[in-house]
Amino acid sequence: MAEYKTVRGMRDMLPGDAERLRQVESQARTVAKQYGYGEIVTPIVESHELLSAKAGEEVKSRMFVFKDLGGRDVALRPEFTASVARLVATALRNVARPLRLFSVGSVYRYDEPQKGRYREFWQTNYELMGSARPEADAETLLLTNRLMQANGLKKFAFKVGHVGILKGVLTEEELSENVQAAVLQLMDKKQYEEALSLVKSAGSSPKGVNTLRSLVEQRGTEVQATVARIAKIVADYERSVQAAKNLEEILNLVLKSGCTTELTVDAGFARGLEYYTGFIFEVYVPDLDIALGGGGRYDRLIELFGGDPTPAVGVAHGVDRIMLALQGQQTEKPVEMENEVMVVPIREKLKAEALRVAEQLRNQGLRVDLEIMGRKMARALEDADKRGFKYVILIGENELKEGAVVVKDLVKREQNTVKIEQVPDLVKGSKKPCERTQES
Amino acid sequence: MAEYKTVRGMRDMLPGDAERLRQVESQARTVAKQYGYGEIVTPIVESHELLSAKAGEEVKSRMFVFKDLGGRDVALRPEFTASVARLVATALRNVARPLRLFSVGSVYRYDEPQKGRYREFWQTNYELMGSARPEADAETLLLTNRLMQANGLKKFAFKVGHVGILKGVLTEEELSENVQAAVLQLMDKKQYEEALSLVKSAGSSPKGVNTLRSLVEQRGTEVQATVARIAKIVADYERSVQAAKNLEEILNLVLKSGCTTELTVDAGFARGLEYYTGFIFEVYVPDLDIALGGGGRYDRLIELFGGDPTPAVGVAHGVDRIMLALQGQQTEKPVEMENEVMVVPIREKLKAEALRVAEQLRNQGLRVDLEIMGRKMARALEDADKRGFKYVILIGENELKEGAVVVKDLVKREQNTVKIEQVPDLVKGSKKPCERTQES
Repeated sequence: MAEYKTVRGMRDMLPGDAERLRQVESQARTVAKQYGYGEIVTPIVESHELLSAKAGEEVKSRMFVFKDLGGRDVALRPEFTASVARLVATALRNVARPLRLFSVGSVYRYDEPQKGRYREFWQTNYELMGSARPEADAETLLLTNRLMQANGLKKFAFKVGHVGILKGVLTEEELSENVQAAVLQLMDKKQYEEALSLVKSAGSSPKGVNTLRSLVEQRGTEVQATVARIAKIVADYERSVQAAKNLEEILNLVLKSGCTTELTVDAGFARGLEYYTGFIFEVYVPDLDIALGGGGRYDRLIELFGGDPTPAVGVAHGVDRIMLALQGQQTEKPVEMENEVMVVPIREKLKAEALRVAEQLRNQGLRVDLEIMGRKMARALEDADKRGFKYVILIGENELKEGAVVVKDLVKREQNTVKIEQVPDLVKGSKKPCERTQES
Repeated sequence: MAEYKTVRGMRDMLPGDAERLRQVESQARTVAKQYGYGEIVTPIVESHELLSAKAGEEVKSRMFVFKDLGGRDVALRPEFTASVARLVATALRNVARPLRLFSVGSVYRYDEPQKGRYREFWQTNYELMGSARPEADAETLLLTNRLMQANGLKKFAFKVGHVGILKGVLTEEELSENVQAAVLQLMDKKQYEEALSLVKSAGSSPKGVNTLRSLVEQRGTEVQATVARIAKIVADYERSVQAAKNLEEILNLVLKSGCTTELTVDAGFARGLEYYTGFIFEVYVPDLDIALGGGGRYDRLIELFGGDPTPAVGVAHGVDRIMLALQGQQTEKPVEMENEVMVVPIREKLKAEALRVAEQLRNQGLRVDLEIMGRKMARALEDADKRGFKYVILIGENELKEGAVVVKDLVKREQNTVKIEQVPDLVKGSKKPCERTQES
C-alpha cells in the first residue's frame, strides 16, 4: 500500500493554520475596502510569455512551466502584477483612472524550501493604476502599514529606496537596459562589489562607479538627512536628482500622514523584479530577515503589455510570512474554539429525532456537531468533553414529547431540561460577561 | 507590442464577479462552522500518482500534468477528495474520529470551455471521515441543502442514488473491479445500452442483465415507493438488498429532518469518480442541466491511500455554477456600492494634509478614496459623482485651522463644514432609515 505525501515544497494547513490564513486574508480585504481597492480574481495558470515578460531572471528561472494538453506554453503565476497589468491593458483599458485593484491567493516559485518558505505561498496584492503622483506611492506604503497593524504586528519597520536614483546614474553613463537590469539584480542580492565591477566593465566612467560606490553606502533612519546626502552625491546626474526629489516628496507625505513606523532610507536598495522604475519599499520585522511585503512603482509595464501608457504602483505581502511574524511576536490571538454544542440521541432509535433537532438549532444560528458514530451516550459525552464542547444536547423521548431536550453543561457538570427554541438563548447567553444559569 | 490574453479556458473575475465568488465562499464557511467542519488548505500541486489513484478515466484524462523542476510527476488538483484523504491517511491518522473537514479553492480540468465551464473553477468541499452510519450520509445532503438556501437559491432539487445497488448485482455476477468501473462510467454518461452490452459480454447471466435493465428505469420523487420498487427488483442479490436498505434509511433521515426539498431517487444514477462505494447525490436547478454539487460515500479510499480503514462521505459544490444559477433565478443581490467618501484637497499644495485626514478617517473605520491624480477640484468632483460616491470631503486651509473639513453631499447637492472627528457620524448616520442632516 502506497503512502502518499505532499510534493516537496508544498504543505497542508490544518485547521489552526488555515484559520490564521483566512484571518490575514480577511484583514487584507478590509484594508482593501478602506482604501477603495476592488477585488479581482485572475487565473493561477497564465501564458509563460506574459509571466516572464518582465519578471527578472531570478523569478523566471524558478517558475513552474509546462505545456497544457493543447500544447500551450503556460506557467503557474509567481506573483500577481503581470496578471493585473494584463487586465489593465485589455479588459480594463477604458475604465476611468485611477484604478485600485486588490487580489489574494497562492503563487508559485521553485525556491529551496526552508522555514517560512514554500513553493506554494500566499500573497495579498494591491495595485494602483493611473497616477504618477507621490500620493499614490505613499498610499501603498500606508496601506501596508495599516495591514501590519490590523494583523496585530507591533514591531515592524520599512526599508525604502528609489530605483530611479541608481538607474539615473546608469542611464547617464549610457549603460544598456540589459546591463542595468543585471546590475540591479546583483544589488538586490547585496553583491555590491560584483555590481560595481559590472558597471565598470560595461563602460561607465570612473565618476559613475565612484558615485554608485558612495550611493550604496547611504542608509539611515533620519529620512530628510539621508535623502539630502543622497541628493548631494548624485548632484551631477540630473535624472538621479529628480528621482531623489521624488523620493523626498513621497517620504514627506508619509511622515505628514501621521505614520510613526520607522523608515530606513537605503540608496543601494533594489528589488528582484525587473519592472520597477521608481519608489520601492519593503516591510520587515526584527526577528525575520525576509521581507513581509514589498512593492514599488512600475510606470512602463502596462505599455509593455500593449496597453496605453499608465503610471502604476503596487505592493504585495507574504501571508505565510505575516503568520510567521505573528508567531514570533507572540501577539497571535489563540484560535477560538469553534465548537458550540453537540447533539446526542440517548438511544440509537432516536437518531432521526436528533438530526431534526440539530437542523432546528442550526436554523437558529447555532453551530452543531451531531453524534454520527452510533456511540453509547457515555462514550459520546467523553468525546464531547475531549473536544472541548461546553454543552451537549441530549435527545430523549420523554423530553421530546414536551418539545424539550436536556442541556448538559460539561463545565459546570449540571443539566437542565429546556424547550428546543430556548436552547440558543441558554448557549449564547453563557458567552456574556455576566453569566446566568437559566432553569426550565 | 504584444497583447496578452488569458490562456484558453481560464478567466478573470472583475470586481462584481469576484465579490459574488467571495460571498459564496463566505456562506460556505458559515455552513462549515454550523456543522462543525474545520477548514484546511491543501496544495493545488499534488503528485500525479495521488491524484490519479482513484479519479476515474474521465477525470484522469483531463488533468493538467507536468514535471516540476526537480523532475517530479505532478498535477494540478482536479478535485479535493484525494488531498483530504491523503491528509487523513497521514498527518491526521491519529486524530479522533469523526473528522469533519472543509476546503474551498480552485481546481483544474482540461474540459472543452462552455458557458459556466472553465478549466480553472472553484469548489467548496466537505468531507466527513470515520462514520459508516446513515446519519453521516444524511448530513452531507442536508448541509448542501443549507448552502443552497444560504446563497439565496429558491428552486433546486436533489437526485439521489446508491452505487452499492448497482455494484451488488455486478459483484454477485462476478464481474471484475475494472469492468464494474467501466460500467458505472458508461452509466454516469447515461449510455445505458452500452453499459448493458458490456455487462453481458463480460459474462453476466441474463438475469443480471435484465435486473440491471429494470433497475436503470427506476426513478421517482416518491421516495419510499421508488426505493420499494428497487428493493423488489434486486431481491435475488443480497448485497444490493442491503444497499437499498441503506438508501432507504438515509432518505428517511433526510425526510424526518424537516428538509422539504424535492428528492428524485434514480437507480441508474452513477457518478464520474471511481471511488464511490455507497450513497451518492447531486443537486440541480431547473434552468441548468449540470449539477451544482454532488457527493457520496467512499469507504475504501483512505485505506487505499495507506491509512487505516475509514468509512467516509463527502460533497463538493461548484461555486461558479452556484453563481450562474443565482443569475438565472434572479435572486442575486446587487453588489453593494462599496464607495463611501472621497477626500480631495482644494489646492495641490494641501495634498499632505489630505493624506493625513484620509488616514484619520480610515482610523475611524471609514472607506476612503483619496484623490491622487492631481486633478482640479471640479474634475475630481465630476469623477466622484461618476463613480457613485455620495460624499466628497474637501480639504481647505481655513477649515483645517479649526480641525474641520467641508463635507459635500453629492446627492442632496449641499455642503457643510464639519469637525474631522464628526465626519464618520455624518456619513454613517446617513445610512440609517431615519435620515438627518447634521449642521456644524
